[in-house]
Amino acid sequence: MDSTVDYESFNDLPAHVWPKHTCRQEDGVITIADVPLPEIAEKFGTPTYVVDEADFRFRCRSMAQAFGGADHVHYAAKAFLTRTIAGWVEEEGLSLDVASVNELLIAAAADFPAARITVHGNNKTPVFLRECVSRKVGHVVLDSPQEIEDLAAIAAEAGHVQPVLIRVTPGIEAHTHEFIATSHEDQKFGISLAAGDALDAVKAVLAHDSLRLEGLHCHVGSQVFDAEGFGLAAERILGFLGEILDTCGPNFPGGREALATQLSILDLGGGYGIAYTAQQQPLDVAAVADDLLGRVAQAASDYGIAMPHVMVEPGRAIAGPSTATVYTVGTIKDVPVGDGQRRRYISVDGGMSDNIRPALYGAEYDFRVASGFVEGEPVEARIVGSHCESGDILIHDIEVPEGLKSGDIVGIPATGAYGFTMSSRYNAFGRPAVVVVNNGHAELMVRRETVEDILALEEGN
Amino acid sequence: MDSTVDYESFNDLPAHVWPKHTCRQEDGVITIADVPLPEIAEKFGTPTYVVDEADFRFRCRSMAQAFGGADHVHYAAKAFLTRTIAGWVEEEGLSLDVASVNELLIAAAADFPAARITVHGNNKTPVFLRECVSRKVGHVVLDSPQEIEDLAAIAAEAGHVQPVLIRVTPGIEAHTHEFIATSHEDQKFGISLAAGDALDAVKAVLAHDSLRLEGLHCHVGSQVFDAEGFGLAAERILGFLGEILDTCGPNFPGGREALATQLSILDLGGGYGIAYTAQQQPLDVAAVADDLLGRVAQAASDYGIAMPHVMVEPGRAIAGPSTATVYTVGTIKDVPVGDGQRRRYISVDGGMSDNIRPALYGAEYDFRVASGFVEGEPVEARIVGSHCESGDILIHDIEVPEGLKSGDIVGIPATGAYGFTMSSRYNAFGRPAVVVVNNGHAELMVRRETVEDILALEEGN
Repeated sequence: MDSTVDYESFNDLPAHVWPKHTCRQEDGVITIADVPLPEIAEKFGTPTYVVDEADFRFRCRSMAQAFGGADHVHYAAKAFLTRTIAGWVEEEGLSLDVASVNELLIAAAADFPAARITVHGNNKTPVFLRECVSRKVGHVVLDSPQEIEDLAAIAAEAGHVQPVLIRVTPGIEAHTHEFIATSHEDQKFGISLAAGDALDAVKAVLAHDSLRLEGLHCHVGSQVFDAEGFGLAAERILGFLGEILDTCGPNFPGGREALATQLSILDLGGGYGIAYTAQQQPLDVAAVADDLLGRVAQAASDYGIAMPHVMVEPGRAIAGPSTATVYTVGTIKDVPVGDGQRRRYISVDGGMSDNIRPALYGAEYDFRVASGFVEGEPVEARIVGSHCESGDILIHDIEVPEGLKSGDIVGIPATGAYGFTMSSRYNAFGRPAVVVVNNGHAELMVRRETVEDILALEEGN
Repeated sequence: MDSTVDYESFNDLPAHVWPKHTCRQEDGVITIADVPLPEIAEKFGTPTYVVDEADFRFRCRSMAQAFGGADHVHYAAKAFLTRTIAGWVEEEGLSLDVASVNELLIAAAADFPAARITVHGNNKTPVFLRECVSRKVGHVVLDSPQEIEDLAAIAAEAGHVQPVLIRVTPGIEAHTHEFIATSHEDQKFGISLAAGDALDAVKAVLAHDSLRLEGLHCHVGSQVFDAEGFGLAAERILGFLGEILDTCGPNFPGGREALATQLSILDLGGGYGIAYTAQQQPLDVAAVADDLLGRVAQAASDYGIAMPHVMVEPGRAIAGPSTATVYTVGTIKDVPVGDGQRRRYISVDGGMSDNIRPALYGAEYDFRVASGFVEGEPVEARIVGSHCESGDILIHDIEVPEGLKSGDIVGIPATGAYGFTMSSRYNAFGRPAVVVVNNGHAELMVRRETVEDILALEEGN
């Protein structure tokens, strides 16, 4: 019978979308790294992000192994950054991408080596650029002609030669499983290959003694599951590299060879997809990396260029699956929706303040009861948050067993990327707590923000 | 010539979408309450929300006047709440809607009289309900059968009789200027008139000695500009009130008359629209209020019911227009978009972290340079934020004069509602500062959150 299948499937645990060390015990309780989620709810309250540290570190190492070593992988801080997480990334030997001055300062607070930091952003302020130069970050990824001049002046003033990459928009756009190749990209990031803008930028950078161009960067999209788009982008960019060497090589000190040696980095950005729902399949990192590196090698060979040092920038693929959000179920209400049908609205004690992705992108997630097995006939349901807004919906359509009840501890996995980092203060909700779990032990990483914290910003003004 | 028109119109100030005391000086500088916005940028940094206190208070008073007195108007805290703002609302004599325990605690920190607080929410936790009862809030708006039982038990235990309203979903849905009337509403808020749910809820409330039902509540939508939807909702709810009196009156102590006297409140919620762009017209509050009150009186008369005490809950209509966000222009870049055309990408030093509405709802806004007149031919442009995300766009399509340059101080008005309150920590941006302006004087209301504040939540854990 259908209902039996649904009942069983709801009490299953789709392990591939939950943190690696998630188990459902014999009594039905879900544990992560041997810590029962109801214990976390009891001790730290809800909503709470629970991070499986070993999973996070495992994904760092998998990426490093797949791409030929930790020096090929930057972790994209924007996905999920705390001082603790920066420390993990450092210990795993990966480099770090930051995209704001505060992300840079958090990395600094974790003593992250500046030489392993790459700096992104379409609008790096003078304050931000000065921090980059004075801290001697590894690379600044130049995003506009204006920034080239600003950074050159700041570096010159500091007597520093700043290594840089140029972010190029090669006209490759990812649409989930499809790629669109155009002659332009109408977006705020990067400098277009079209109309000669990128070549002008290269010439501008090479003209500054305070900047040292070491390679090119591009980014093809988000939630990408195969190497095709990266390959297409690499082809265009290596073609462009050939053009640079032909155009600028003859006048470069040491000639074309020296310029080729200096422009060794091909940074293909991030965008590696993850599975959010039971139906989706996780990325096969090793296979995609092999395919991608093969395509780059082929393109390099086609253009008669040495194999570049390929860099990748996974954020979501490392942070996303290693974290789940734990909530407590509150109000349950069966709402008539016409034709004698009802929909069960199940409220949890968080919502769009801790996970804006369903409202912002229509993102879908998995949802399980963590406090035990749930019995009963399947019911059409919607999982909603506690905010004063109709659109505050976490899961639009789900069948849950009738026995799911108020007070149950529930979890939504794959919330590590763009969960905490995009958390808002809507309805004066403080930012949730972040808890790290490891071998049966749970530890607070970031404490829950309180109303006192919120009021403190208004004190004495 | 078209270009002249565009040039002039950009340097115009569409006063109806800016705070009431906004002017453009002879030198082109924009002031709010006689404070030049460039001075605010200089003193407090950017991005900063600038609140015209007199405008906020004026809108409180206009609403009160239009609806027959301050005791008819609740300010919806979710739009924009700080301790200071709660104080203004209190001084203007309005009541206050809160939708979370933290909003209630912020109101308490401002010594807002609990008797003038109405409490909303689809998922009021036991902790929240206990705070409501122990603080003796004016009304709890009951949202589900489960909450009726929870609140009744908590009030009984405290020996308190809690005044309540029931939130009813009358099947009236606002779609900007159109209303759809259905027999149900498939949403998380309220108790449906359909299938008898609302009548069951009334009976359940009346059966509890610890609850005192004083009226009904409904909410028809957002950005509503006329009284039609409110009138339709009022008709259905007053019809329902008649049904309640017929059904429950005979058994009520004192009979139907006593019940009718007790159920005196008709709370028609919020949703009053505001103008976000120069092309939009602001709400004529007085006209809509007259129309609405007329429709309610007519419906009451049709059903042979005394005119109820009508309550309204404006949030956006009070907070929205009284605030503008001030930014500094950073990187400007002309991006090829095909066919030899280019689009000018103008970056500001905030973005989706301080205003999620363009990304979340496709909301449109006005945009002006505040540091002086701008000259030159019109250029197709896009105003983007500083976040590491392509979708971080504040204004999708706008023509600006060519002379707009990096370093200019710019403003986006009508950001008081759902700006600060929904601000996020994306890319570790701290929450922006909030500055109040009054008669040539600027004062910090909420200081800018720093990276130290962000790191402090992680300290010692």
